[in-house]
Amino acid sequence: MTLTIELLKLKPQFVECVFFHEKVKENENLLYLRELCKAHHIPIIVGEKAFNILSIKENCYVIGMFKKFKSQIESGRHIVLVNPSDAGNLGTIIRTSVGFDLKDIVLIRPAVDIFDPKTVRASMGALFHINYQYYDCYEKYEQDFPKNNPYPFMLTASSSIQNVVFREPYSLIFGNEAAGLPDSFAMLKGGQPVVIPHSKSIDSLNLTIAAGIAMYSTTRKPVSGKSGESLKHPDNL
Amino acid sequence: MTLTIELLKLKPQFVECVFFHEKVKENENLLYLRELCKAHHIPIIVGEKAFNILSIKENCYVIGMFKKFKSQIESGRHIVLVNPSDAGNLGTIIRTSVGFDLKDIVLIRPAVDIFDPKTVRASMGALFHINYQYYDCYEKYEQDFPKNNPYPFMLTASSSIQNVVFREPYSLIFGNEAAGLPDSFAMLKGGQPVVIPHSKSIDSLNLTIAAGIAMYSTTRKPVSGKSGESLKHPDNL
Repeated sequence: MTLTIELLKLKPQFVECVFFHEKVKENENLLYLRELCKAHHIPIIVGEKAFNILSIKENCYVIGMFKKFKSQIESGRHIVLVNPSDAGNLGTIIRTSVGFDLKDIVLIRPAVDIFDPKTVRASMGALFHINYQYYDCYEKYEQDFPKNNPYPFMLTASSSIQNVVFREPYSLIFGNEAAGLPDSFAMLKGGQPVVIPHSKSIDSLNLTIAAGIAMYSTTRKPVSGKSGESLKHPDNL
Repeated sequence: MTLTIELLKLKPQFVECVFFHEKVKENENLLYLRELCKAHHIPIIVGEKAFNILSIKENCYVIGMFKKFKSQIESGRHIVLVNPSDAGNLGTIIRTSVGFDLKDIVLIRPAVDIFDPKTVRASMGALFHINYQYYDCYEKYEQDFPKNNPYPFMLTASSSIQNVVFREPYSLIFGNEAAGLPDSFAMLKGGQPVVIPHSKSIDSLNLTIAAGIAMYSTTRKPVSGKSGESLKHPDNL
């Protein structure tokens, strides 16, 4: 429901129709969805058929059918995902990136389809808020955005995230779930490899967690100083 | 493979047997696993049968069969999960918690089984590093650990994580994936509700991401001051 509402609010021009399950409950959200469909001349189809074919979750009562849309990233801060292979992880990363106002996502092929239903669902609608662009290789992306300062996240990096100053505009670069980034990323022109320190008891942090910590750390605003407590304990800022 | 090695290294007393797929490749890890089995008198069973029944992933060549084990948390910092319902998320949170040396996990029922195969797999072996304890309600946990300072993570909290000083020993408390924490957690005795600020474009951060950011922020050590850069830019610490 929420996902379809986000879709209709942000990308109505790509929506072909909306399916309602026969058992969907009439409530405020549904009424709002009906209004959105009406305003954008999007047909509503009531029935079970689409759900029997498409739905993988039992508690699904609304489906929005839309065309894949093209997109282009803008200049500024970028999230660069090199060979992401898990559709759910990609959706979670998009949800987090929108949460921290990082709305330009670069995907270096081979990469999962950003319109994989798992990605769309895991993004919780955040997918409709972002710009994205696929590149066949990192070098092509680098050519298009030569002013961006690359920060590849690598376990072999010598600089901890706490000690790194992220110069604008920055690109936070993350590797594949299983393999991480290739060693060559340690040598990027103007690049600064970064590591999120963790205990030796684990091999690595989960990709979505590492990306989440990186996005949080680099975007949160300096503390305003209103809180007396935080001023007394600068280590905890 | 890695998961089974972790199991045999950390909890050999609970292992009943190890299954090898007929097609498993002989390599260093397998040799090490054979040695661990031998050292702990654990039988190795070669064949496809167990994999046909148990394996949900195609690239699975080793299965470790072990008894669920009881555990007890220790005093100190705790992660408290109230009604976690997604087995994979629980595993990811455990992996992160071990990464940040937070090894005592409290689960408030109703809660997913910590030995759900999805939890074990998503933990990547971190499950064998932690202590855990289930409670029927939060109040019982509170009674057992009255010295712990509770920090419930709630979207309605007025204090941002950057401004909060986490007093030792602290309990980081997280709600269910869909519902978050009940409102009553805002009134915990000695408690300090905390929010991780995010843009209005998303309803909330994913639970594992919120927990990851919280664990990272509260455990990372103060910057040593060796780096000139970090001293010049305290906002980036």
